[in-house]
Amino acid sequence: MTQLERARRQEVTPAMQRVAEKEGLDPETLRRRIAEGAVVVPANKNHSNLDPCGIGQGLRTKVNANIGTSEAYPDMIRELRKLQRAIEAGADTVMDLSTGGDIRACRRQILAHSELPVGTVPLYQVAVEAQQRRGSMVAFDGDELFEVIEEHARDGVDFFTVHCGVTYDVVERLRREGRVTDIVSRGGALMVGWMLHHQRENPLYAEYDRLLEIARRYDVTLSLGDGLRPGCLLDATDRAQIQELIVLGELVERAWKADVQVMVEGPGHVPFNQIEANVLLEKRLCHGAPFYVLGPLVTDVAPGYDHIVAAIGGAVAASFGTDFLCYVTPSEHLGLPTEDDVAEGVIATRIAAHVADLVKGVPGALEWDRAMAEARKNLDWEKQITLAIDSRRAKHHRAMYNQVSTTTCSMCGSFCAMQLVGNYLGKTPGRY
Amino acid sequence: MTQLERARRQEVTPAMQRVAEKEGLDPETLRRRIAEGAVVVPANKNHSNLDPCGIGQGLRTKVNANIGTSEAYPDMIRELRKLQRAIEAGADTVMDLSTGGDIRACRRQILAHSELPVGTVPLYQVAVEAQQRRGSMVAFDGDELFEVIEEHARDGVDFFTVHCGVTYDVVERLRREGRVTDIVSRGGALMVGWMLHHQRENPLYAEYDRLLEIARRYDVTLSLGDGLRPGCLLDATDRAQIQELIVLGELVERAWKADVQVMVEGPGHVPFNQIEANVLLEKRLCHGAPFYVLGPLVTDVAPGYDHIVAAIGGAVAASFGTDFLCYVTPSEHLGLPTEDDVAEGVIATRIAAHVADLVKGVPGALEWDRAMAEARKNLDWEKQITLAIDSRRAKHHRAMYNQVSTTTCSMCGSFCAMQLVGNYLGKTPGRY
Repeated sequence: MTQLERARRQEVTPAMQRVAEKEGLDPETLRRRIAEGAVVVPANKNHSNLDPCGIGQGLRTKVNANIGTSEAYPDMIRELRKLQRAIEAGADTVMDLSTGGDIRACRRQILAHSELPVGTVPLYQVAVEAQQRRGSMVAFDGDELFEVIEEHARDGVDFFTVHCGVTYDVVERLRREGRVTDIVSRGGALMVGWMLHHQRENPLYAEYDRLLEIARRYDVTLSLGDGLRPGCLLDATDRAQIQELIVLGELVERAWKADVQVMVEGPGHVPFNQIEANVLLEKRLCHGAPFYVLGPLVTDVAPGYDHIVAAIGGAVAASFGTDFLCYVTPSEHLGLPTEDDVAEGVIATRIAAHVADLVKGVPGALEWDRAMAEARKNLDWEKQITLAIDSRRAKHHRAMYNQVSTTTCSMCGSFCAMQLVGNYLGKTPGRY
Repeated sequence: MTQLERARRQEVTPAMQRVAEKEGLDPETLRRRIAEGAVVVPANKNHSNLDPCGIGQGLRTKVNANIGTSEAYPDMIRELRKLQRAIEAGADTVMDLSTGGDIRACRRQILAHSELPVGTVPLYQVAVEAQQRRGSMVAFDGDELFEVIEEHARDGVDFFTVHCGVTYDVVERLRREGRVTDIVSRGGALMVGWMLHHQRENPLYAEYDRLLEIARRYDVTLSLGDGLRPGCLLDATDRAQIQELIVLGELVERAWKADVQVMVEGPGHVPFNQIEANVLLEKRLCHGAPFYVLGPLVTDVAPGYDHIVAAIGGAVAASFGTDFLCYVTPSEHLGLPTEDDVAEGVIATRIAAHVADLVKGVPGALEWDRAMAEARKNLDWEKQITLAIDSRRAKHHRAMYNQVSTTTCSMCGSFCAMQLVGNYLGKTPGRY
């Protein structure tokens, strides 16, 4: 039985207990939200070392870090170091998107070393193997696709991205719409390529029940991919994107009927003032299923700084109700991230998530900011460093910028407003 | 005559011509907005090498970089290098906030080397000199304050921050409110200290006409400081802050009556969901005067990353109509910024400003993103690098991440969606 099925049968599982404890939430409230589909707990029965994590309504906004090998960087060890950096930086989940070297071994190693839920995109492995065996990324059939999906499930993958909404109908709408950057999702492009090459409907849609059966057996949470997500601001929120979202909404309901946990992926590149509508549409069209967005990126012009661009978009998206943010690193649009990029991307995205959690009223969020404010007021540097989202960096910067031990800092020195208020106005708040 | 006075007399000055040209705007439209006070052109008659810049309604959102010496880092040469970095990174204005070493010399050197409008906070110099001469930062009288203000005006400073709204009445409201971090504005803390020490009303308020007279003579734009800006999320948008804003609104109208250009400074530390109200309040209470915000910072917990925190807040603030963003660097709350911090802060803030300009419909903003999207679609790396907000970083990252010359990148390699679409779907957008 999946967490969803057990929640519907009024059972509070150990995974639910653990998530409720981490969120500071009543387990029964959590169980109800899982039963309604508003929260997922990606927890594959075969991921033995998992510390479960909840994603969805009323919970802390979660952060995913994408890692994994590529053709140019097939070294698995490097990706395991990235996993470690992601965990240290505070990621809630990781996705292994490997497309280079020994994909199977990399996935299994990441699962073995990760207490965080692990996600994958099985289609990548299928395409890589097709290319290797038959010289074309789309030279595979539906059976092979489902076999690899089942392999991922058997290995213990907690959630996988499946591009089920890329249907003939949706692609036809894309063709009629016209776009600047067409398709930028690798999975989306592969599926469309497969459909045109084989002249057949997307098997992930046509044989969706087969997918549900696998997901149910291992309790893999489906992450319904947005294969037609916009690749630039000008393509955002167009008819093709929304058409796919309508299809995904229907697939959400079919997953729920099959007791399969499900969330929905979203864009992508979206102008600031279209983000609220995107969140609202997902929540309405998909009947409250958790929303998982990549970025969104609110401008296209800042390669090298896309972690900042995504932090802006992610803070907005999460403030309006998005549940799960996929990080974007400084290397986005330029190359595979380095280990430092991974850490930088996780922290930037955690900032966005926390900014939203303050708005969402997530338990404990405001208390963190209050504690930092009080430490600042008291010029308590040790506490400020402890409370910092990245204590190591705060400590390093504090040491680097301040040549001598001082109660204030090198920006203001004796002009420190905190100290002035202390000297002239009395140290106790409210006393002048 | 000031730009405001001349605009009111239907005159389009050379400065207005130049600003209109840079903004791609009809000069007469610009003149009208200046006459209404909705746009300022900070352009001191004595800043001879100035390339004028407009700030306000319908114009590109502007970015300010704070530089200047401190007690711990009194080296002027270092600050001149920061000026250079700020200019290269694309700042629209700089403020010299020097409090260490030879303050006068530093200001004059920065003015001599800056075609950008230069702002200052004359009060800092007054306090430093009082400390040096008489052992107390508040050991000065109103005459000395106005003498230093006039010295700054005479030197060619284009805009200065004056904490005119810190009145007895406002401070009393602060006392009754109670706060976590009381006062965090250095100028605000100094003025309150002065008022309590001398038992007199703030001379910048009591003798505001004297200030207007100086500002008018040199055409210095007043930047009405928010001495009681919140220093943490919990203090945001409280009665003390809004009381000061009401006073600033009245002072805006008095400035306009005296033909003095004026803008209003704003917070500070503000939760995400209070930013829109803060912008609306400033625009309403100050009758459309340009709004200049510091950040705002949407969480307190990320020292070392406050440039990202401020980029989130700045994008929101500017999208709702804020005209002018003061940068925040990674060193905020930790120490005086390094040269690299200056560049990082300017770029992060420019990203926020541009994100908002896309929403504001500023001429040319969307075209930049369109050009980048097309370059990506065409896998034209040279053009992507040229179009990047920081070409140097984009070029460096592209070279660092990609070991061999390739049409794609090291993240996707042959799985590049752009290339897949090209191979399988035909390269022309809309053709599948």
